[in-house]
Amino acid sequence: MIVIKVGGSEGVNLDAVCADVAELVGRGERLVLVHGGSYLTNEVATALGHPPQFITSPSGYTSRLTDRRTLEIFEMVYCGQVNKGIVERLQARGINAIGLAGIDGKLWQGPRKEAIRAVENGKTLVIRDNLTGKVEEVNVDLLNSLLDAGYVPVLTPPALSYKGEAMNVDGDRAAAMTANALQAATLLILSNVPGVLRDFPDEASLIRRIDVSEIEMVAQEYAQGRMRIKLLGAQEALAGGVEQVVIGDARGDNPILRALAGEGTIVSGQQVPELA
Amino acid sequence: MIVIKVGGSEGVNLDAVCADVAELVGRGERLVLVHGGSYLTNEVATALGHPPQFITSPSGYTSRLTDRRTLEIFEMVYCGQVNKGIVERLQARGINAIGLAGIDGKLWQGPRKEAIRAVENGKTLVIRDNLTGKVEEVNVDLLNSLLDAGYVPVLTPPALSYKGEAMNVDGDRAAAMTANALQAATLLILSNVPGVLRDFPDEASLIRRIDVSEIEMVAQEYAQGRMRIKLLGAQEALAGGVEQVVIGDARGDNPILRALAGEGTIVSGQQVPELA
Repeated sequence: MIVIKVGGSEGVNLDAVCADVAELVGRGERLVLVHGGSYLTNEVATALGHPPQFITSPSGYTSRLTDRRTLEIFEMVYCGQVNKGIVERLQARGINAIGLAGIDGKLWQGPRKEAIRAVENGKTLVIRDNLTGKVEEVNVDLLNSLLDAGYVPVLTPPALSYKGEAMNVDGDRAAAMTANALQAATLLILSNVPGVLRDFPDEASLIRRIDVSEIEMVAQEYAQGRMRIKLLGAQEALAGGVEQVVIGDARGDNPILRALAGEGTIVSGQQVPELA
Repeated sequence: MIVIKVGGSEGVNLDAVCADVAELVGRGERLVLVHGGSYLTNEVATALGHPPQFITSPSGYTSRLTDRRTLEIFEMVYCGQVNKGIVERLQARGINAIGLAGIDGKLWQGPRKEAIRAVENGKTLVIRDNLTGKVEEVNVDLLNSLLDAGYVPVLTPPALSYKGEAMNVDGDRAAAMTANALQAATLLILSNVPGVLRDFPDEASLIRRIDVSEIEMVAQEYAQGRMRIKLLGAQEALAGGVEQVVIGDARGDNPILRALAGEGTIVSGQQVPELA
């Protein structure tokens, strides 16, 4: 069982991702695809006159400020344009894909953050109309029944709060929770960089291996912005029983096959620490 | 088994639709909801600089010209904004809804029209880049397995062509095919008019009953635009074994319960013709 998260950043090659999914499914591999859509969401939100706003938490994580109108635009892009674009690409390759949001069938559930703190110009603010939260529960029965029937699930935020609200959640961490719930051996987290870089954005500074014991140090010392959340997702996946996480590149050809071959940053608990 | 189609025209009350769905599911009713999204699609397409275009077939049916960019915007609104908005409304009411497009899991399949004829200023044109078709096959196994597991399916175009392309299909006729495939007793087709009007737009001219034998006459004599397609859908549903179709109003409170009580235009083969 493999869970593949492909980000929504600029340059991600969805055609190549879908070609690899078709290849793997054709070999009999059981897999779930999770995707993002942030770059297109920013474009559409701007075009619709509701440009994106981002907030930074006191611990330094950046996330999208998600008011009701932003959630609506988010759903347009993630659940409409991107999800159905991937499903169509897979169907055209003979793969019986089925696209679901985390709110569908209570696929991803968790608590909504009723109030969050954000740092702006050195001041800490409390924001209450933010529709975000995190995934704590995955509807494994639904996913397994679809996989058993031969479908390939294609999953995307938003998730569902315990009160029944749609809420934005981090896709990397949702993919990690999904990998844990499905007892996947491997989680791939692919975006538009080669992996974790020691000296961002110098792509030659790729860190090839990270032991689970080094994740927090790497997140503090080297990782920036979104990469810190990917490392957090990797840490959660490994803690939940996933054997290996590969943080890799979705820009070129064969992004999934290359990551499975170890291209990118391999994060696991089974190797001699490289950085220690 | 009831199949409910709720249109995407201006004024449709989705909160009231979802309240009625929750009421019926709470009573143990087995149902599938199919929805549209045309009004919002027109708004979003215009805001995104790709305004809607409509074409009229030689036989007088009007439909959306669906090029690739239009399909993308269509998916944003139908599969993203509207579908997930309905799923969230139902989840908030404790109903475990699951939203699917016709391309998901080959739910709705059929032939794409490779070339269509359209009449413009009295001339007949042939259009080839139009991504439209019709539903011939419904994935009943998928729907029944979801219904058996307690989910409420919420379905929307696009459908999937036999070549694996996403294509726009008429939602009323797709709902009719779904009702036939599920052997539903009742199909409701709800929009922003009280039913079939003898003298459109005079709402007092509602035709209360139409016998199956009268459908073609009514479509020719009284129905306009979209209503002619709803009558065609009703005819197809009745031909496929549905006992009763109600063409009703989704604007006020309790739109589904009112239609089930016979408010609107009842189309069936079991009544004394009123219009003959």
